[in-house]
Amino acid sequence: MRDKGVTAPAGFRAAGVAAGIKPSGALDLALVVNDGPNDAAAGVFTTNKVKAAPVLWSQQVIKERRLRAVVLNSGGANACTGPEGFQDTHRTAEKVAEVLGCGAIEVAVCSTGLIGERLPMDHVLSGVDKAAEVLGPNGLDAATAVLTTDTHPKQAWKAHKDGWSVGGFVKGAGMLAPNMATMLSVITTDAHVDGDTLDKALRQATGRTFDRLDVDGGTSTNDTVLVLASGASGVEPSEDDFVALLTEVSADLVKQLQGDAEGVTKEIAITVHGAVTEGDAVAIGRIVAEDNLVKTALFGSDPNWGRIAMALGRAPAEIDPDQLSIVINGVRVMDKGTRGEDRENADLSGRDIDVVIDLGLGQAEATILTTDLSHGYVEENSAYSS
Amino acid sequence: MRDKGVTAPAGFRAAGVAAGIKPSGALDLALVVNDGPNDAAAGVFTTNKVKAAPVLWSQQVIKERRLRAVVLNSGGANACTGPEGFQDTHRTAEKVAEVLGCGAIEVAVCSTGLIGERLPMDHVLSGVDKAAEVLGPNGLDAATAVLTTDTHPKQAWKAHKDGWSVGGFVKGAGMLAPNMATMLSVITTDAHVDGDTLDKALRQATGRTFDRLDVDGGTSTNDTVLVLASGASGVEPSEDDFVALLTEVSADLVKQLQGDAEGVTKEIAITVHGAVTEGDAVAIGRIVAEDNLVKTALFGSDPNWGRIAMALGRAPAEIDPDQLSIVINGVRVMDKGTRGEDRENADLSGRDIDVVIDLGLGQAEATILTTDLSHGYVEENSAYSS
Repeated sequence: MRDKGVTAPAGFRAAGVAAGIKPSGALDLALVVNDGPNDAAAGVFTTNKVKAAPVLWSQQVIKERRLRAVVLNSGGANACTGPEGFQDTHRTAEKVAEVLGCGAIEVAVCSTGLIGERLPMDHVLSGVDKAAEVLGPNGLDAATAVLTTDTHPKQAWKAHKDGWSVGGFVKGAGMLAPNMATMLSVITTDAHVDGDTLDKALRQATGRTFDRLDVDGGTSTNDTVLVLASGASGVEPSEDDFVALLTEVSADLVKQLQGDAEGVTKEIAITVHGAVTEGDAVAIGRIVAEDNLVKTALFGSDPNWGRIAMALGRAPAEIDPDQLSIVINGVRVMDKGTRGEDRENADLSGRDIDVVIDLGLGQAEATILTTDLSHGYVEENSAYSS
Repeated sequence: MRDKGVTAPAGFRAAGVAAGIKPSGALDLALVVNDGPNDAAAGVFTTNKVKAAPVLWSQQVIKERRLRAVVLNSGGANACTGPEGFQDTHRTAEKVAEVLGCGAIEVAVCSTGLIGERLPMDHVLSGVDKAAEVLGPNGLDAATAVLTTDTHPKQAWKAHKDGWSVGGFVKGAGMLAPNMATMLSVITTDAHVDGDTLDKALRQATGRTFDRLDVDGGTSTNDTVLVLASGASGVEPSEDDFVALLTEVSADLVKQLQGDAEGVTKEIAITVHGAVTEGDAVAIGRIVAEDNLVKTALFGSDPNWGRIAMALGRAPAEIDPDQLSIVINGVRVMDKGTRGEDRENADLSGRDIDVVIDLGLGQAEATILTTDLSHGYVEENSAYSS
């Protein structure tokens, strides 16, 4: 059966193994290899000022716009680990280069897990050997090996009618915010696309997808999205076609992140219409998505529009309170600055909640995806469960 | 027995009555009256762009720097209620002016409760009559009548050795953030202080106290702090002495807000040392205070310093990750960019948690007070409890 993730496009092999980094014995090391003929690559990374060692490394190597492989581990973030942590990342890349017969500069590294602990390097290095031995159409194993508090692997694949495709996986469940989530994603394509075009396309696609998911305002030290192009289909798509399919796969992965977020009981889309600028629409969507009083009300299926009005009133954006309307699951609960239809008419008992905020000022709009703030979120993040 | 709140300073009377605004029959309308001889006053208000009618009204009348009275109600915020809501506030001020024999422009109005509903004006107006009848040394009744989800009234009073004093009450339990919380506070003094000095002193005092409490990042539509000076002591303190005592009373009230915040199980002080500017120190303290992953970890008594490092890395402030140290309850868990002492040595089982972040860059510092994110917070704000 054909894989539906990173090894679905031609020219890629992958592996996911149990290297012993996680004490549980679960899969914890993934390898994705581009067999070419091309090796174009691009990446976007966390905006956090505190960056993990693998991010510092991968940001350097991606400048060449070429990657032969990506090695990823769960079970440790390798963040706040000093020069020694950076050396660990470097050694990991060198080990991959050695087994694949390429240069370390062609190998990106991603890590996820607890911040502040060194990785057990003996396990990491022997894990690379183990992974190299089983490289094949194992996108699902790779997608599984990067999981932390995620409940299931998340893959996506879309084929273009002209004979090329885009596939990928993503992990992430908490610390999810705009400008990258606690989130690692590797996306592959067999289209013929050069490095600079790939970089531009990735920024366009992530700007409208990954950057518009906001679960808890957190921005991890390790967030990374990488895209690798093998050219194995022999097809060179138009830039527009490529951006469109890459965006489609990214959106699919992001929707899966939303659905598997920590403690999620509601999948919430906050759409802001009538903004003066798209930046204003995004800023308002985000501040509402991050507001704990809004998130707890929606957890309780309570269409408490006053909290939404309160939250957006502190956004750094142009707002006229008298023009403001709010529609929740189709019910116009706030109409031009005051109470609209009876809020009790808004049925929020289901899993999906649509909040539409109409600013009534301009033509710009944006949608931010988020989740509720539930007992499950608190439980999972408080180490409170014994 | 002498009152310990707004009616402790000479020249003030107060009342708190059950006007029938709250269906429960609890106290819900408060009146604070300055009998002079002076009537100097100042106020600070929410920075939210969506402002409740009473805020719009009080911001206007305070421009004169003179107030004879403040009328406050719980049971309804009178926010997002349109021109009719503003008329309701105006009528309330006129009613108070009528019973006291002053002008409506000398009466400030504060409201707190659900956003988006009109107030039951017949109850409000008859409540004013009722309150006027029982005016006296009833600061505690007034402090009680403004409560919403607060579990107890919160008052403070400090006397200066030169024969003047400052007293006040505050309410607020959720939607508490910098630049005013969901929070109403009235502070009184019998010192002889003119309006402009009072205004300057209030801004200095709130900037270091009310503006440095951040429970959930929320900024209400109704936040108000008012200070009234009667001059009844006949003493004119130095500006420095007055600011000092006003700050002391404000800090006391803020500490009580922290202790009674929704769902609080931990009272957390986040002190940022070694910042380049005080603004940087405040920005970092706030972003850590608002981070749900930090707040849930502390709820679980987990000294997870990696989450603190992650949170502060996205602050709009100057940071050098390699200079960063974090001390939790006296244990240096992060030392200059990497792991320090064993985190297990930090005992977080008590109610008070001290987080000290040393940026190692400059001399500026600031402390932000916050609370944890608990099941109680989610429960209280989700309308989930049946």
